[in-house]
Amino acid sequence: MKPTYYQQLTQTFQRLSRFSHLSAIAGWDMYTMMPAGGSQARSEALAELSVLQHQILTSPQTGEWLDGAQQEALNEFEQANLREMHRRYQQAVLLPADLVQAKSLAGSRCEHAWRSQRPANDWQGFAANLKEVVKFSREEADIRARAASVSRYDALLDVFEPGMTSRRLDVLFGDLKSWLPALLQRAVEKQAQRPLMAPEGPFPVEKQRALGLDTMALLGFDFNGGRLDVSAHPFCGGVPEDVRITTRYREDELFSALLGVIHETGHARYEQNLPREWAGQPIAQARSTAIHESQSLFFEMQLARSTPFLKRLRLQIIAHFGEQTAFEEGNYIAWNQRVKPGLIRIDADEVSYPAHIVLRYEIERALNDGDIEVDDIPALWDEKMQAWLGLSTHGNYRDGCMQDIHWTDGGFGYFPTYTLGAMYAAQLFQSARRALPRLEEDIARGDLHALFDWLRQNIWQHGSRFTTTQLIENATGEDLNAHWFRQHLEARYL
Amino acid sequence: MKPTYYQQLTQTFQRLSRFSHLSAIAGWDMYTMMPAGGSQARSEALAELSVLQHQILTSPQTGEWLDGAQQEALNEFEQANLREMHRRYQQAVLLPADLVQAKSLAGSRCEHAWRSQRPANDWQGFAANLKEVVKFSREEADIRARAASVSRYDALLDVFEPGMTSRRLDVLFGDLKSWLPALLQRAVEKQAQRPLMAPEGPFPVEKQRALGLDTMALLGFDFNGGRLDVSAHPFCGGVPEDVRITTRYREDELFSALLGVIHETGHARYEQNLPREWAGQPIAQARSTAIHESQSLFFEMQLARSTPFLKRLRLQIIAHFGEQTAFEEGNYIAWNQRVKPGLIRIDADEVSYPAHIVLRYEIERALNDGDIEVDDIPALWDEKMQAWLGLSTHGNYRDGCMQDIHWTDGGFGYFPTYTLGAMYAAQLFQSARRALPRLEEDIARGDLHALFDWLRQNIWQHGSRFTTTQLIENATGEDLNAHWFRQHLEARYL
Repeated sequence: MKPTYYQQLTQTFQRLSRFSHLSAIAGWDMYTMMPAGGSQARSEALAELSVLQHQILTSPQTGEWLDGAQQEALNEFEQANLREMHRRYQQAVLLPADLVQAKSLAGSRCEHAWRSQRPANDWQGFAANLKEVVKFSREEADIRARAASVSRYDALLDVFEPGMTSRRLDVLFGDLKSWLPALLQRAVEKQAQRPLMAPEGPFPVEKQRALGLDTMALLGFDFNGGRLDVSAHPFCGGVPEDVRITTRYREDELFSALLGVIHETGHARYEQNLPREWAGQPIAQARSTAIHESQSLFFEMQLARSTPFLKRLRLQIIAHFGEQTAFEEGNYIAWNQRVKPGLIRIDADEVSYPAHIVLRYEIERALNDGDIEVDDIPALWDEKMQAWLGLSTHGNYRDGCMQDIHWTDGGFGYFPTYTLGAMYAAQLFQSARRALPRLEEDIARGDLHALFDWLRQNIWQHGSRFTTTQLIENATGEDLNAHWFRQHLEARYL
Repeated sequence: MKPTYYQQLTQTFQRLSRFSHLSAIAGWDMYTMMPAGGSQARSEALAELSVLQHQILTSPQTGEWLDGAQQEALNEFEQANLREMHRRYQQAVLLPADLVQAKSLAGSRCEHAWRSQRPANDWQGFAANLKEVVKFSREEADIRARAASVSRYDALLDVFEPGMTSRRLDVLFGDLKSWLPALLQRAVEKQAQRPLMAPEGPFPVEKQRALGLDTMALLGFDFNGGRLDVSAHPFCGGVPEDVRITTRYREDELFSALLGVIHETGHARYEQNLPREWAGQPIAQARSTAIHESQSLFFEMQLARSTPFLKRLRLQIIAHFGEQTAFEEGNYIAWNQRVKPGLIRIDADEVSYPAHIVLRYEIERALNDGDIEVDDIPALWDEKMQAWLGLSTHGNYRDGCMQDIHWTDGGFGYFPTYTLGAMYAAQLFQSARRALPRLEEDIARGDLHALFDWLRQNIWQHGSRFTTTQLIENATGEDLNAHWFRQHLEARYL
C-alpha cells in the first residue's frame, strides 16, 4: 500500500530527529568534553549536518506532502503534529540558503571575537561585528515579517515563542513596569534590616557535585536517561532519552552551582517526560522556549527557593558540608531569598531579573524594527539601567550591553522568554497549589511526587500537542496572567 | 568554471568525512558517557547516518565521477587519493542494501545476547545467533569474492588489510608456527627460574589516571587534540583533530591500565599526525588496520616493554605510587616482560599472543570458506589451544571461542591484523634502531623526539598515500618479513 502523505512526513521528521540527536550530542560534547584543537573540525561537521537537515526539511517534496496531508483524514494528534511540521517547514523554507549561511558566519565571527572583546571592554571592535549580525538579522526578519504580515521583531519573536507578539509583550511588560520597581525597592529596604552571614568556603568541587546529584535525585531526575557535567556556561542539552545538564563550580561559593543544577533539572525533567509514544515527531517536542524556561524556573524559583523546600534542602547541605553559622535556618533561608540589584543578568535575583529582560527587549525590538542603530545601544542601556535599578554602565560595556552571548549570534527575540517563563512558572505553581492542598507539607517532607505528577499531567506529557495558550488555559484555567507573578513576588519578598 | 570530476569527488568525500566525524564522536560517547537509557535512540541515530553515508558513497553520481576522474590529469597525491576513493566505493557499492541491513541486525542481535550468554557459558544460545551472522557474512564474502576473483575469506580480509591474502598469511603464519611454540616453551622455562613479586595495591584510580596522563605526555600525545577517558573495552576513537583514547582501571592492578594507555597512545599519535593538508580525504586516513596496530604495538611492545623505557617509566611510577619491593628494578622489569600462556587473548603476552591469532585465523577462514560450520568451532578451538599452549577449553566456551566480540557482529578478517601489526612493529623498530644509533640512550633519558620523528617521516605523515607494501618497503627497505619479529622475541625472551 502506498504510504499516505502524512506517513511520509512522519518518516521524514523521524529521520530529521535522528540527525538532531547526533547534532545535540556532538554539541554537548563541544561544550563539555572537546579539547580546543577539535573546534574547527567540529564546527564544520555540525554545519554540514545542519545544511543537510535544512535541505531535507525544505525540499519541494516536503512541501508537497504537507499540502497533500492537509486533505487526509487525521486524528487530533496527527493534526497537531502536522501543524508543528508545517510551522517548521515554513520557518525554514522562507530563508534563502545564502542568507542562512551569511548570518551564521557573521554570528560565529562576532561570537568568537566577543570572547576576548568582552574582557577587554572593546565596544568599538564588538560593534563592528554586531552591525553585520544585525544587518542579516534584519534581512531575516524582513522576509519572515512579509510572509506573516507582522512587524520585523514580531517575526523573530515567533521563532522562539509561537503566537507571542510585541503588542502582547507591551501589555505584560507594561504591567510589570507599573509595579515592579516599587516592589523591588520595598524588598531591598525590608531585607536591609536583616544583616546576613555569607556561607564560608571552601566548598570542594567533588562534594558540590555529590550534593548536586543527591538534589537531582530528590527532584526525580532519571539518571538512566541523563548526566550531570561541567561547562563554562550551564545548559540543558542532549535528547529526551539522554538529557545532559551542566553546571560550573566555584570553590568559594556553594549556592550558585546548586541552584543552577536545580534550574537545569527543571529543563531536564520536562525533556525526560515528553511524550515518548511520538518520539521523533515535532508534536513530541517541548512547547516553546518560554514554557521550557517556566519549568526550570518552576524548579528553581517557585519550588527550590520556597521556604519549605529550602528547609528540606538544608538537611542535604549539612549532610554534605557539615554545620556552620551561616547555615542557621533563618540566615540560610534569607540568604537564598535575598534581593540585590546588580549589573549582571545571570547573577540577578528573581525580583530584579525582569528589569534586565525588559530593557533588552526594548532595545532589541527597536534595533530590529530599525528604530535605533547598534551605535545607540550603550547610551540606551545605561539610561534604562539607571531608570530600573539606579545603576550606571557608562563606559562599562563589559558589564553592560556586552555581557550576554545572545545577540552575538543573532538570537534576537529570545530574551523575553525568560520573563515569560517566570510568569508562566508563577501561574502554574499557583494552580498546582490549588490542586494539591497538602503541597507545602509534602515539600517540607521532600515528597514531590504529587507536584511532579501535576506537572506531568498538565505540561510535560503534552509536548507540542496544544498551542501555548491552550496548554496554559488547560493547566490553569486562564491564559498568561502577570498577576500571579506579582502575587508570588509580593508573598515572598514583602 | 565547472569543477572537475576529481574536485566533485573531493567535495563528496569531505562531506562524508564530516558525517564520519559526528559518527565517531557519538560512537565514543556511547561507550564512555552515555547512560543505558540512551542506547536505542543512539543506535537509531547512528544507523540513520550510516544509511545516508552509504547512499552518498554509492550514488550513481559518485560512480560516474570516479570513471570521469580516471581520465583527468592528476598528480601523484591525487592519484593515490582517487585509488582510495575507488576502493571505498567498490567495497560499498557491491553489497545490496538489504544484505547490509540484515547483517547489521544479525550482528547487533548476536552481540547483545552474547553479553549475557558469555558469562552464562551458553554456547547453544550463542551458536544459534552466530549461525545467522555467518550466513550473512558468507553472502557478503561471496559477492566480494566474485567481484575480485578471490576466495571468500580473502575478500573479507581485504576489507581490513588491503592487498593481504590467505596465501601470504599461510606463509607468514606457517613460519611462526615453525619456531614460536619452541621459543615460547624456552621463554617460560627460562623465566621459571626467577620467582617474581607481584606489585601490591590498592592503586587508586585517580593516581593511575594521573600516571597515565604523565605517560601520554612523555609519549608526545597532544592534549589540545585529544582526551583520555574510561570505557569497558579500551579503544582509540574520535577524529584526527580530536583523538579519544580510553582505558579501564582495576585498583588491585597497576600495569594493565598503564600499558593499555601506552598502546592506545600509539594508535592516537598515528591519528594525530596523519597528513592534515589532505584532511577529510581518503588519502589522509591511516593505511590499514595492521599498520594501525603496528603503531600501538610499536609503542606498547617495542618501546614501552623494552628495558631502557621500563627503567625510565619506573621513575614515574615511583613518583606517583612510592617505592615498594616489587618495584625493585630487576623484579619490575621481569614482571613487565613475563611470559605466561593463558586462555584469554587480551591478557596474553606478546610471545603467546600469536597463538591466539593463528588459531582464530584458521577457524574463521575455514568457516567463511565453508569448510567447517559453527558447530565445529568449539572442538577445533580446544584442539588448537591444546596444540599451541597445552591448555584445555573443553566445555569452557566462555574462556574459549566465546571470549571475543569480533565474530559476534561479523568482523571476520580482522584477527590476523593483530599479529601482522606485531610483525610490522618489530620490523619498523629494527629500522628505526638502525637509523638512530643513540636510540637506547635516548629512550633511557626519556628523549623520544628522534624516534617519533622517524615514525612521522616514515609512517604517520603518509596516511594512505602508498600501498602497505610500498609504505613498509620505503620505511624498512623490504616488504613484511617475520624474521624481525622472531629476532625481537629471541632478543627479549631467550
